[in-house]
Amino acid sequence: MGPGPSDIHPRVLSALSRPTIGHLDPAFIAMMDEIKSLLQYAFQTDNPLTIPVSAPGSAGMESCFVNLIEPGDKVIVCQNGVFGGRMRENVERCGAAAVMVANPWGKPVDPQAVEDTLKAHPDAAALAFVHAETSTGAASDTRTLCELARQYGCLSIVDAVTSLAGIELRVDQWGIDAVYSGTQKCLSCVPGISPVSFSDRATYRIKNRKSKVQSWFLDMNLVMGYWGTGGKRAYHHTAPINPLYALHEALVMLEEEGLEQSWNRHQQNHRALAAGLEAMGISFLVDEPYRLPQLNAVWIPEGVDDAAVRSTLLQDFNLEIGAGLGEYAGRVWRIGLMGYASRKQNVLQCLSALEAVLAAAGAPIYTGVAVAAANREFTST
Amino acid sequence: MGPGPSDIHPRVLSALSRPTIGHLDPAFIAMMDEIKSLLQYAFQTDNPLTIPVSAPGSAGMESCFVNLIEPGDKVIVCQNGVFGGRMRENVERCGAAAVMVANPWGKPVDPQAVEDTLKAHPDAAALAFVHAETSTGAASDTRTLCELARQYGCLSIVDAVTSLAGIELRVDQWGIDAVYSGTQKCLSCVPGISPVSFSDRATYRIKNRKSKVQSWFLDMNLVMGYWGTGGKRAYHHTAPINPLYALHEALVMLEEEGLEQSWNRHQQNHRALAAGLEAMGISFLVDEPYRLPQLNAVWIPEGVDDAAVRSTLLQDFNLEIGAGLGEYAGRVWRIGLMGYASRKQNVLQCLSALEAVLAAAGAPIYTGVAVAAANREFTST
Repeated sequence: MGPGPSDIHPRVLSALSRPTIGHLDPAFIAMMDEIKSLLQYAFQTDNPLTIPVSAPGSAGMESCFVNLIEPGDKVIVCQNGVFGGRMRENVERCGAAAVMVANPWGKPVDPQAVEDTLKAHPDAAALAFVHAETSTGAASDTRTLCELARQYGCLSIVDAVTSLAGIELRVDQWGIDAVYSGTQKCLSCVPGISPVSFSDRATYRIKNRKSKVQSWFLDMNLVMGYWGTGGKRAYHHTAPINPLYALHEALVMLEEEGLEQSWNRHQQNHRALAAGLEAMGISFLVDEPYRLPQLNAVWIPEGVDDAAVRSTLLQDFNLEIGAGLGEYAGRVWRIGLMGYASRKQNVLQCLSALEAVLAAAGAPIYTGVAVAAANREFTST
Repeated sequence: MGPGPSDIHPRVLSALSRPTIGHLDPAFIAMMDEIKSLLQYAFQTDNPLTIPVSAPGSAGMESCFVNLIEPGDKVIVCQNGVFGGRMRENVERCGAAAVMVANPWGKPVDPQAVEDTLKAHPDAAALAFVHAETSTGAASDTRTLCELARQYGCLSIVDAVTSLAGIELRVDQWGIDAVYSGTQKCLSCVPGISPVSFSDRATYRIKNRKSKVQSWFLDMNLVMGYWGTGGKRAYHHTAPINPLYALHEALVMLEEEGLEQSWNRHQQNHRALAAGLEAMGISFLVDEPYRLPQLNAVWIPEGVDDAAVRSTLLQDFNLEIGAGLGEYAGRVWRIGLMGYASRKQNVLQCLSALEAVLAAAGAPIYTGVAVAAANREFTST
């Protein structure tokens, strides 16, 4: 129950360990086609260029920047946590200039500040921001931000690593041009793969670049050939066969449950966890309307030893929760309720373990109160 | 039995599907340290910067070039198959110039041509070549080529994707500066990970670059922090936890067998396969001293329909063999005997299936002759 990788369903682990077949085997290629259409469903898009990049989310981020940005470009980057800073690194390593929109950590990106920046930089090529900041648990208004980007003639690049399948995300309806995610968060698949999707506008940009993409491995002009998006299928690299079995199974399970039902489940389990935490006197970093149900960042109670609590939870309760990052290191815990880990059993187990550990550490905790509050929330919904 | 991914031992598949834990979990970090030292054994090196890149071999290749090469550099690239061409792409996308040493496909790299080129380009920063060309089955004299590189003041960058654990490879003794491999060949692990190793000389170059590495994801200055090579461990990206379980198990199995014993096993099974194929009248693309035991490229008998034979082998015998690439497409088959697939059962099954399919296609084959020849070879050794 950290910030990811999340728990993995036995069906997905079982699919993972099927015998490896060739990356050009007809059976494998048929599965690749299914993965593409299942990803389109998860992203709510008809984009033909919707595929899993054969590397972790950081490489998915990089694939968006190196394909869409050229040397000399200007990119507006919003930062309200760790990952906006990583976007800046990507922009600058493409030989482009990053114009930063700084937001306080733990707050959503401010659309007014973004619009002011778009106005001040009419030559910007793209607007980049994080939908769901894993470092703070704050959600930004992606629909509004993408509308602004379009209005000012920018491509939008959206980090959906933690949002995909956990909260509402509608790539086509919201007009997102490039989006990347990870498999190890609300899809509850093994880490190491990054689903991405590019709009037709973005794909046109990729196909009509002035310079070659600086990464051969991530060059979508080549990768889309292997994934059979437009034209004859051609070998590019050896796909991670087994992790793709697992991704296929995780996406089939998402389709079985239904995407909106998955969003609702994440919300419901979050509400129960929040009720329990608040009953313990623990409060959230993020204001209520912007809280991510799948990533609960909470203030560590005063006088409590951060590392000792997390270590006891891990050793005695086999339970991982996440540490704070950056300015919140030592001040915040991040409790994940992602994918398969977003279920009643985990909510109650986390609350009871945390109660026990905090009580043992001398915090003023009435044991059982948190679990009771969570159960009331479960019963009421 | 194609050119990889190879068959995977049940122990490795079983390790793969263990429950996923956090990428900063103490148990996982302990396993990372074991992986590093097991990889040092496999590469025969003491290089501290010996780690698995969290992406396929193509990304391992890219990690060597983007870390060691800077814009304006000159790199001598030897090409005797597909992968030298990919190296050239990498060099050029780093903003550097590639000086090509062209060799006929199916032959080893010619050390004299390399020395002439080194002499003609005293300002070259690196010499890059492929140890074991997967596209043709030819091995090059890596020791001699690395000695030449050092003699002329160049770093050496070596593609060992197909050689690692299959034929002799001694990174320290041969003076290799940067080497990358894949997990899906003679290690018989799942595809998607790329072991790399950098000498101290190469690591010094990486730490003292004039420009930032153009890939954030592959920047070894950051990656080595996550892998705990020099200094405090810091989060970089989420490692592919489960494939690393599998890699750990595959490396443990390699250590159990012994590296030299693994090389010998590959050689022995190759000799038996070769005896059988030659008894069928099938001859090799590569001259005997340069043949890779793990990748047997053979001429398709005249009048035989390449695609039909491979398709029948796959459908009726559940057996994959590889097609030819480039100028050898339709003219050559590539039969892999890699890792767990390099065993007597596979040799005999491949020969009997091929005999049956070729005989059915009207080729002048005496059924049973090939298997008998292979068995004689097994008995004599």
